[in-house]
Amino acid sequence: MEIYLDHAATTWVYPEVAETVKNIMCTDFGNPSSMHQKGVEAERMIKESTNKIAGILKCKEKEIYFTSGGTESNNWALIGAAQAAKRKGNRIITSKIEHASVSSPLEFLKNEGFEIIKIGVDKNGLLNLEELREALNKDTILVSIMMVNNEIGSVQNIKKISEIIKSVNPDTIFHVDAIQGFGKYKINPKQMGIDLMSVSGHKIHAPKGTGFLYLSDKVRILPYIYGGGQQNGMRSGTDNVPGIVALAQAAKIMYDNLSENVSHMRILKEQLVEGLKSIEDVVINGAYDDNTAPHIVNASFTGIRSEVMLHTLEDKNIYVSAGSACSSHKRAASPTLTAIGCDKTLTESAIRFSFCEKTTEDEIARTVEALREVVPVLRRYTRH
Amino acid sequence: MEIYLDHAATTWVYPEVAETVKNIMCTDFGNPSSMHQKGVEAERMIKESTNKIAGILKCKEKEIYFTSGGTESNNWALIGAAQAAKRKGNRIITSKIEHASVSSPLEFLKNEGFEIIKIGVDKNGLLNLEELREALNKDTILVSIMMVNNEIGSVQNIKKISEIIKSVNPDTIFHVDAIQGFGKYKINPKQMGIDLMSVSGHKIHAPKGTGFLYLSDKVRILPYIYGGGQQNGMRSGTDNVPGIVALAQAAKIMYDNLSENVSHMRILKEQLVEGLKSIEDVVINGAYDDNTAPHIVNASFTGIRSEVMLHTLEDKNIYVSAGSACSSHKRAASPTLTAIGCDKTLTESAIRFSFCEKTTEDEIARTVEALREVVPVLRRYTRH
Repeated sequence: MEIYLDHAATTWVYPEVAETVKNIMCTDFGNPSSMHQKGVEAERMIKESTNKIAGILKCKEKEIYFTSGGTESNNWALIGAAQAAKRKGNRIITSKIEHASVSSPLEFLKNEGFEIIKIGVDKNGLLNLEELREALNKDTILVSIMMVNNEIGSVQNIKKISEIIKSVNPDTIFHVDAIQGFGKYKINPKQMGIDLMSVSGHKIHAPKGTGFLYLSDKVRILPYIYGGGQQNGMRSGTDNVPGIVALAQAAKIMYDNLSENVSHMRILKEQLVEGLKSIEDVVINGAYDDNTAPHIVNASFTGIRSEVMLHTLEDKNIYVSAGSACSSHKRAASPTLTAIGCDKTLTESAIRFSFCEKTTEDEIARTVEALREVVPVLRRYTRH
Repeated sequence: MEIYLDHAATTWVYPEVAETVKNIMCTDFGNPSSMHQKGVEAERMIKESTNKIAGILKCKEKEIYFTSGGTESNNWALIGAAQAAKRKGNRIITSKIEHASVSSPLEFLKNEGFEIIKIGVDKNGLLNLEELREALNKDTILVSIMMVNNEIGSVQNIKKISEIIKSVNPDTIFHVDAIQGFGKYKINPKQMGIDLMSVSGHKIHAPKGTGFLYLSDKVRILPYIYGGGQQNGMRSGTDNVPGIVALAQAAKIMYDNLSENVSHMRILKEQLVEGLKSIEDVVINGAYDDNTAPHIVNASFTGIRSEVMLHTLEDKNIYVSAGSACSSHKRAASPTLTAIGCDKTLTESAIRFSFCEKTTEDEIARTVEALREVVPVLRRYTRH
């Protein structure tokens, strides 16, 4: 029996959602741009899906734009906003703990001549608000701050950050990467002062290749993918009908069960943290209280390299991550762990455990048991 | 029983392909970027799929990059090539009959300062090669010409066009939108002199939201979606594993049966053309010989507006298109029909019929029968 504790990297699709995908692919396969009945039916499904998501975010339907995933949403939000506002200013502010799908497009914008300022975080991964306040000015066109960090699960006070931004410059666009937050937290972009927000499907039991961008109707950004004029001309390309319907269906299931899911994951998190604390020389990176994400625990097993631990657990059919999956093939040190002040000893031995709402207490117990067994053995090897 | 003759807009997914999608979504759901077994397995599936497609195109695996569809492929190819070559020159050449997913990103590049030249076509939709030759110069960084036109099925001599381009300027990058050609023609980019080529999944019984860009390893373009560095850093974002596997599986089925499929569709095309000729005042737009695509027939029923005909056929459960689906919600005149010299009478009454290999002779016979029945009736109405 495998124990999959890498849900923050990707997770399985709800069976009923996969069934929907299959049916739409084979039967209700119309192109929403077609004028005949099969097109109209497909368009109706898209509208219904948009409505579901708008209901969750308490926003307007026209503020939801479907994309091919979180990475496209982040690229579009950042590059599209910068392109639209380039005559207003040149400064873009972000944090030192963003995912590569934010930091890489910002690197592109830096090469295009924009000034990129990266704000630091404290040892728990929380943004230095004073540093943010000082960096903001009339020339700041865009701020991008993630809601839930993908490596350590720190959660920013998005509303507070928005207030600070808007108090300095109400025209500054505020983008939030909510890829690890959507499905775990209630998010109301209007109330929280979010202008742009990226969401990915495959973190919430929807298919890979799906996602959306929330785009406030008060904000103007350029399109990023041009063509037949789908989605009000803002994101062209034949609508991915099965993907969109699946995304909305999964989102609805997640939010219909939000509080039970989160309570359950908090129990798992506490159980895992207690287990980790009972093992010698284990450091939990970042905070792990109720102000952190319910589904992520990051711990360093000092003296044991991440890859060694990962593959040792893999031999016991326990799947964890040695960093964020999205860049784990690259061997660079984690920017998040570095930013919260972890030294090399900690970054080189860090392991991320991440749950979903179907992860069981038994799985966590068996994982802790496996860790208790392998840690002393691995330490003996490395100490030779 | 419905008769779906809009396969050039979109088509159903092969049932065995949809089954694959469902299984991967629920069971083999790993993230190829993960280092553990579930990631490795997903990575293996991607590699196998890349290999299948490289086999079809007789190119290298590293020349295939998966995208979210044809529109993204076209945007990336054009904008990525222009960005990479902007210091070498300023001219981009295209045709007057391109799909919006080519002409719209070129419009964006025009606003960015590039010079866009559109070459005309003859009455059959074939590119004016003399005009192309004259437009080419040392300043030309990019040429984009579609292989098979989506509205009338005209097929360009891609190899000849490449030879003309390269004879004037070997550094000019040649992009081909092969979205309607892939799955209907053998395509060997190396032999045909293609540098970049866009393909869409949902035209070949693969899922919507899938596609790829062939990118010759001799050519350099910038990435378009930045992030975790997937696909050699050229197209970031978690690989859409089920979509990619499905795309390769569908492509293989298409190409394993290519000649039978095409022969069958040629019979259907001839049957439909004969039927149309037997109806008074029907004009077939463009050529319809064996040099045209096997799956597209475009005809004008003079005096009967496209929408009226479309909805009349719809009432008989026959689904056709009033233009290319991708822009049929917009009521602008078709650029292709205008470019081949159709007057308003023809453009306003044009209907596109498009097949797949499973379309039957019986379906075509019943469509012709329906047309024979409704054309005189509709003409009587419009003449009042």
